[in-house]
Amino acid sequence: MKIAASLVFAATAIVMATPASAQFAKPEDAVKYRQSALSIMGTHFGRIGAMTSGKAPYDAKAAVDSAQIVATMSRLPWPAFTADTEKVTVQTRAKPEIWTNNAKFKDDSEQLQNETGKLLAAAQTNNLDNLKAAFASTGKACKSCHDDFRKDVK
Amino acid sequence: MKIAASLVFAATAIVMATPASAQFAKPEDAVKYRQSALSIMGTHFGRIGAMTSGKAPYDAKAAVDSAQIVATMSRLPWPAFTADTEKVTVQTRAKPEIWTNNAKFKDDSEQLQNETGKLLAAAQTNNLDNLKAAFASTGKACKSCHDDFRKDVK
Repeated sequence: MKIAASLVFAATAIVMATPASAQFAKPEDAVKYRQSALSIMGTHFGRIGAMTSGKAPYDAKAAVDSAQIVATMSRLPWPAFTADTEKVTVQTRAKPEIWTNNAKFKDDSEQLQNETGKLLAAAQTNNLDNLKAAFASTGKACKSCHDDFRKDVK
Repeated sequence: MKIAASLVFAATAIVMATPASAQFAKPEDAVKYRQSALSIMGTHFGRIGAMTSGKAPYDAKAAVDSAQIVATMSRLPWPAFTADTEKVTVQTRAKPEIWTNNAKFKDDSEQLQNETGKLLAAAQTNNLDNLKAAFASTGKACKSCHDDFRKDVK
């Protein structure tokens, strides 16, 4: 029993010793990953916005497809804001506050994921008014986080 | 009836007159979009590969999560290989054969999507051997398309 317990402990220690940053070989990879996810999210959020603003015809299926991608993408960037990317030399709009006020950043990222879930649910109602309302709420979540944690100029 | 039919025709014409490239404001946006999707796909395919090769411990949930992202990403890049990106000046590894042999490129992209669907199903069995087999098949689909349609050096 003692040996078994030790083995479990050792295995747990190995898992716990693997920081999130070990998911990326280099900090630059983490930056590229999160920028990619945010960019795809922006593209599809923009497509929904074109429909809700009347710049593009409302296409219920396309709205659901885009909302699904937005919801999936909204889960990805956050583990890639690893501490070793704070001082990375590649171009990034990440503000130091991401790490100095990480609790707020985490709250904002969770708020976004809540909103994108609601956006997808709204898209699935096939009702443009529902989509408009959810698009506006999701946009507020984007903006709130950008205001605090993203540099204005690239 | 005549009016209604004309309206339907007009609406159809508007939809058909919107080329896929209209999804992107600039060809460079299409390149960024497809590169982002392929990059995220590569990251998560690599995480599964680390598990199947024994470089990382097998984590059934993480494998499913990554396979889901791979499957989702595998659907995205193709509409972004718009004709107006063939001569784009930003860095791209896209070969001209994408447009000169587009039927084969389309077949390859569909083959990949089939394989990533199977990869996800394999991950969901929570069986490492199934995952290994599906990872190998998916990798072949990646390689086959890269051999024909991706430049070797970035």
